[in-house]
Amino acid sequence: MSTAITHVRQIEVGWGDCDPAGIVFYPNFYRWFDACSHALLTSRGMSHRTLNERFGIIGCGLIDTGAHFTSPARFDDVLEAESRIGKLTNRTFTVEHVFRRGTVQICTGLEVRGCFVADDSISGGIKAIALPDELRAALQ
Amino acid sequence: MSTAITHVRQIEVGWGDCDPAGIVFYPNFYRWFDACSHALLTSRGMSHRTLNERFGIIGCGLIDTGAHFTSPARFDDVLEAESRIGKLTNRTFTVEHVFRRGTVQICTGLEVRGCFVADDSISGGIKAIALPDELRAALQ
Amino acid sequence: MSTAITHVRQIEVGWGDCDPAGIVFYPNFYRWFDACSHALLTSRGMSHRTLNERFGIIGCGLIDTGAHFTSPARFDDVLEAESRIGKLTNRTFTVEHVFRRGTVQICTGLEVRGCFVADDSISGGIKAIALPDELRAALQ
Amino acid sequence: MSTAITHVRQIEVGWGDCDPAGIVFYPNFYRWFDACSHALLTSRGMSHRTLNERFGIIGCGLIDTGAHFTSPARFDDVLEAESRIGKLTNRTFTVEHVFRRGTVQICTGLEVRGCFVADDSISGGIKAIALPDELRAALQ
Repeated sequence: MSTAITHVRQIEVGWGDCDPAGIVFYPNFYRWFDACSHALLTSRGMSHRTLNERFGIIGCGLIDTGAHFTSPARFDDVLEAESRIGKLTNRTFTVEHVFRRGTVQICTGLEVRGCFVADDSISGGIKAIALPDELRAALQ
Repeated sequence: MSTAITHVRQIEVGWGDCDPAGIVFYPNFYRWFDACSHALLTSRGMSHRTLNERFGIIGCGLIDTGAHFTSPARFDDVLEAESRIGKLTNRTFTVEHVFRRGTVQICTGLEVRGCFVADDSISGGIKAIALPDELRAALQ
Repeated sequence: MSTAITHVRQIEVGWGDCDPAGIVFYPNFYRWFDACSHALLTSRGMSHRTLNERFGIIGCGLIDTGAHFTSPARFDDVLEAESRIGKLTNRTFTVEHVFRRGTVQICTGLEVRGCFVADDSISGGIKAIALPDELRAALQ
Repeated sequence: MSTAITHVRQIEVGWGDCDPAGIVFYPNFYRWFDACSHALLTSRGMSHRTLNERFGIIGCGLIDTGAHFTSPARFDDVLEAESRIGKLTNRTFTVEHVFRRGTVQICTGLEVRGCFVADDSISGGIKAIALPDELRAALQ
């Protein structure tokens, strides 16, 4: 049985992350999801720089994303963000996030990501490639 | 049969909306979804100000959100954002978004929103209320 | 006497642009200054794409910036942003911004920008170049 | 001679903080300046919450701001942000910031801030007040 790949980090909610209702403006949670996913990949030896230098990947772009919000977060809250690798396919990996303030769950999030390289056949285009074996190995 | 409630607006992709891969950093799509939902509500006579003054609502907060990305958008793209009221329940309404650049679909999005008021029983808390009848009427 | 190069555009203040005090979180003004400068350059035939394709410029990066705030702006305000080319030197151009809501001045801003190209001698570095003559001509 | 009031924190540059040129989109530096100023105030016992509860202050809003950029920062850089109280007047205090990556200076910044309370005479207005003595004492 494989051990789940997880990564935990802290998020400090800033003044400018909150809206006139005094709670986090929700797109910021996705900004934090993205930072958590980068940190998780880096913790597995698969930083953006490594993916770029070794496989020519310009980014682990998003295919599907979602979030469910259960309790608001506010300025000066320190959130614990736990991120975990979920489903792996040939072409995608899923990162599942749970944010908590103490024992209170703030939100859950999900990102389905693929690996993208420059597509020389179309000006400025990008195209998805299969996950490199090394990346797959690092995520399971 | 009710006519679907829709609203269309244009989004100009800015330099700072894009990441080092040259494409829109995805949380910005959610920022635009939020702006589209506010504009749709305003177009139905239910601006934030109206909701606040008439019903004491401090925000139409998010319960669930999601987005599916089909094609990247870049700096200087002008996107057409079409937003539509989907499912209505006693306590929630759903806004469905489709972003296109010309005939190319960029992404779809979904926001399930409720109406929140200040909860005096808990310091700084908020609580969901049933959608006011006038708001329900405006959205169908 | 040269006619001043100016460009005017509208800015709609979004819900997420404002902070818990209900006013624009000030870094967003700089985000708008940047968008205004890009629009001004584009209006003079010097879009980012043109600068990149013709001169290899990867960005008109910032050297100095500043803003003075005179009156707060709020959600749903529509601001008029007037941007003007100020001082031109061999290596820099200045863009001066004034934001107003009706006759009320909200803020003034200033950006001193240079032209940057990739510096092959240092991994990932950038270096400033003299303004191309065509750009100088377009800005005076 | 008074000891300078300073505060140091680390800033991790995120993927979404950078633009298509691969460097930090400059308004994000102002977002970080704001976070640094809040942290400095908190370190002096003058958190936003304290200022609000004790003096009715809704925010330490900006009057003047500026930044000078000397070297670009990139994704995954960890910056040291040093913030220092500068000039104090009856109605304003200045925060001076220096950001470095190792020994390389990235930028300097300056924020002139005042204390604002709700202005009941004008709907939704705010007005500046003199700095409370306790705040002045905490900043020198």
